[in-house]
Amino acid sequence: MNGAESLIQTLVNGGVDVCFTNPGTSEMHFVAALDEVDGMRCVLCLFEGVASGAAAGYAAIAGKPASTLLHLGPGLGNALANVHNAKKGNLPMVNIVGDHATYHLQYDAPLTSDIAGVAGPVSHWVHTSCASADIARDGAEAIRQAGRGQVATLVLPADVSWGDNLSGAADAPVLDAATPVPEDRLDKAASMLENGKATVIMLGGRCVSQAQGELASRLAQATGARVLTETFPARVRRGAGTAVIERLPYLAELAIAELEGTEQLLLLGAKAPVSFFAYPNVASVLSPEGCDILSLAGPNDDIEGALQALVTRVGAASQAAPALRELQLPEAPTGELNAGTVAQALACYLPEDAIVVDEGITSGLACFPATAQARPHDWLNLTGGSIGWGLPAAVGAAVAAPSRKVVCLEGDGSAMYTVQALWTMAREELDVTVVLFNNRKYSVLEVEFARTGARGGKPGPKAASSLAIGKPDMDFQALAAGMGVRASVATTAEEFSQQLASAMAGKGPCLIDARIPPLELNW
Amino acid sequence: MNGAESLIQTLVNGGVDVCFTNPGTSEMHFVAALDEVDGMRCVLCLFEGVASGAAAGYAAIAGKPASTLLHLGPGLGNALANVHNAKKGNLPMVNIVGDHATYHLQYDAPLTSDIAGVAGPVSHWVHTSCASADIARDGAEAIRQAGRGQVATLVLPADVSWGDNLSGAADAPVLDAATPVPEDRLDKAASMLENGKATVIMLGGRCVSQAQGELASRLAQATGARVLTETFPARVRRGAGTAVIERLPYLAELAIAELEGTEQLLLLGAKAPVSFFAYPNVASVLSPEGCDILSLAGPNDDIEGALQALVTRVGAASQAAPALRELQLPEAPTGELNAGTVAQALACYLPEDAIVVDEGITSGLACFPATAQARPHDWLNLTGGSIGWGLPAAVGAAVAAPSRKVVCLEGDGSAMYTVQALWTMAREELDVTVVLFNNRKYSVLEVEFARTGARGGKPGPKAASSLAIGKPDMDFQALAAGMGVRASVATTAEEFSQQLASAMAGKGPCLIDARIPPLELNW
Repeated sequence: MNGAESLIQTLVNGGVDVCFTNPGTSEMHFVAALDEVDGMRCVLCLFEGVASGAAAGYAAIAGKPASTLLHLGPGLGNALANVHNAKKGNLPMVNIVGDHATYHLQYDAPLTSDIAGVAGPVSHWVHTSCASADIARDGAEAIRQAGRGQVATLVLPADVSWGDNLSGAADAPVLDAATPVPEDRLDKAASMLENGKATVIMLGGRCVSQAQGELASRLAQATGARVLTETFPARVRRGAGTAVIERLPYLAELAIAELEGTEQLLLLGAKAPVSFFAYPNVASVLSPEGCDILSLAGPNDDIEGALQALVTRVGAASQAAPALRELQLPEAPTGELNAGTVAQALACYLPEDAIVVDEGITSGLACFPATAQARPHDWLNLTGGSIGWGLPAAVGAAVAAPSRKVVCLEGDGSAMYTVQALWTMAREELDVTVVLFNNRKYSVLEVEFARTGARGGKPGPKAASSLAIGKPDMDFQALAAGMGVRASVATTAEEFSQQLASAMAGKGPCLIDARIPPLELNW
Repeated sequence: MNGAESLIQTLVNGGVDVCFTNPGTSEMHFVAALDEVDGMRCVLCLFEGVASGAAAGYAAIAGKPASTLLHLGPGLGNALANVHNAKKGNLPMVNIVGDHATYHLQYDAPLTSDIAGVAGPVSHWVHTSCASADIARDGAEAIRQAGRGQVATLVLPADVSWGDNLSGAADAPVLDAATPVPEDRLDKAASMLENGKATVIMLGGRCVSQAQGELASRLAQATGARVLTETFPARVRRGAGTAVIERLPYLAELAIAELEGTEQLLLLGAKAPVSFFAYPNVASVLSPEGCDILSLAGPNDDIEGALQALVTRVGAASQAAPALRELQLPEAPTGELNAGTVAQALACYLPEDAIVVDEGITSGLACFPATAQARPHDWLNLTGGSIGWGLPAAVGAAVAAPSRKVVCLEGDGSAMYTVQALWTMAREELDVTVVLFNNRKYSVLEVEFARTGARGGKPGPKAASSLAIGKPDMDFQALAAGMGVRASVATTAEEFSQQLASAMAGKGPCLIDARIPPLELNW
């Protein structure tokens, strides 16, 4: 058994049995080992940002890490943005980054780079395996470090990969369980919930589950507290039959208004809410001054256990049922195709247990509220703010849950960072429907330009040109066809509804190029 | 004047008057300032790797840096691979990376990241500007650091950008001149050239110019030394009327054979030759054991001056004319379209003073020797080994030299890393012809798989699948059309010749999807 075979067997033993990859020469022994060791599914991506985004989407749905296989520092660089997103979302990931043979590094060949240096800012754990005999131990430690919510990056020199490893593979490591929340903190939270002050319970983190929502809703019913999720938890269970929970708005101005009057904030999985960006004359901290903030449970703590303990403490189990959403489906929309009618069609046709990957940016904003009473589904959010996550995350979600429909809400601007993901959807015949909001603008940047107050909020000609991605207009039907994904163009609500209904009824990858008008800035 | 205006004026004053960008919220004041300060050409890219690759191609042709404008750590991550390529090629670049407002960083908002940490491994110089009053000084220093051959990365917090700068812009910095090679080193080199031993003069670095080639050839004629270039200098002047100089082969086995018997190696701009990758049982160092290696001039030294001084020392000026290539154009090819007939057509139709950007990988290999006696042209190579450089570099070269025809030789695999560059070609109406070698394989990886000896050199089914990028086949005509670039498909040598001739005679961006058979592995 060589080092690469030992590593793959160790990964498979530890339950890491999917590898999203774009390999190069230094990874050829790892690639060869895929045929020597059973159990690793290898998904080829044409760009490393697709591989890392897919690993992020996979982790959100599978609840465990996938591995990536990347080619030296530049390959990791290409993957970096979506590794960042995973790290910010507390999503587990095991990156395997090939390097030159250890003895070759001294010669500073063209692809020599400081891999650990690049990995550090986006990883919780970085390690370079220095000998073939160590790789099983190092691989198991990478899995343990990734655990439930960390990014582990293991650098694999070529000679460590091709050298003999007589000690074989490692068993599955013992993973840390979710940390129980200390009793005194629960006592404090219970007394805060019962002191009559205006209180918000904010949920967030890797997954706001059905059970978490119901428990928080019971607490709210019993104590008068409000429940919100943070703006972008990695995953939220929602739709009919789930608890009535709103989310904190993205826009700082609206979030501040939403939290106005809040005297106490209990955080479970969520961080204390802050503005996504800084703006002149807008506060960075979104909660009111003097608000008493308790970080009750971090993203790796036992959030559900904490909520259950609080329900017991405040006597909510006997006195309050959770407020649940009822199923309410709109009619299929007619008339103009715009962000609103797309959202209406989505609410109408979204099948039960679908996974929605939301990178619709401004155009997708209407979809979230519109689907609150749709059939029950999971909603995945962009956790680290770096766009180019959506299409890859849809790949990963579909690999993790092949029997579920994945709907990817995607902006035209954000699609173009990692548009190569379409090819992997076709290659793996993934059941993903991409709703492509084609408005020929970086609309969010027009909004942000106004919010930052640059040049009085009104772009001059050069700036306006930098925010517009028409000239030439992109034809996503052609782009999808170029990568083997069947696609259609919708220009009316009727066309879109028909195409979406057909996609929801069928299987396999498809893309709807939804030609919508650009956002009107009227706020 | 605010910080952003001060910075842009400083860049323009220092001759850095092109900015390749993909901006975000934290860069909105920089974008706004483009309309307040004259003289900066802003080129929008849909992905940051296009921006950095364009800056690399621009620098190779313009001989001075462009700036990039990138969005925080993830934006820099997306740009990283081509920044790496620029650094390895000693190409100057000024990266401006926006960051959160200084006071906002403490809140660890989703896009907060260690920008300087990501920048370090791919930059010669990294600095964070901490106050609006400093930005002019910092911008001028970035230009000075970039100089002729370095990557300078300046982090620009949003509040530094939007804050007032009463001190205005800075003047152009004084750049370091090329360092003269010390006399004693020249004496040593001259004595080596005259001692009768088997000597190779190896040229390389940022630009192997007409003059360098002629001088080296004179030295060779006078002393019996051989002249080679390193495998991938950033830029080489070649074709009819240039000196007869071969390049060191890429494959270590062939390079070792090429250098066999060499007793002395004089390096000018080039590094001591080493294998691109390590392979079991193949040496990393390509020159023979015991070969006496003199690093006569580094990439930032006065290479032409050193060659001139040597010509004088060894008396070559009077006794030897350089050996120059004669113009010899082949007929247009007929029959099967393959790597060879593409190369023949290229040699036939390449116009005078064209710029060839070579990321043809295996399929492009035949083009280099085939064009040795074509009309005179410049040839740009991938200097850092990270593919996804070609299409962006063609963008940058065309921006730098709008009156010259740019021909981009591009593999199908490598094209897909930064395929978004096609959109910028269309938007800016750049005179680029992309010759897309569509063989539906990562052929280079099949070669490398065999060379590494993994699994006896023969991929199993999973490995073979990871090296093949058919299923689905990519349709580059559709991809180009989706981004506004006119394209055609060529399946015979006649079709290709006709399409290439037409492209060479016309102006503006176009792509030829050259359907060629995959490489036959028979070595």
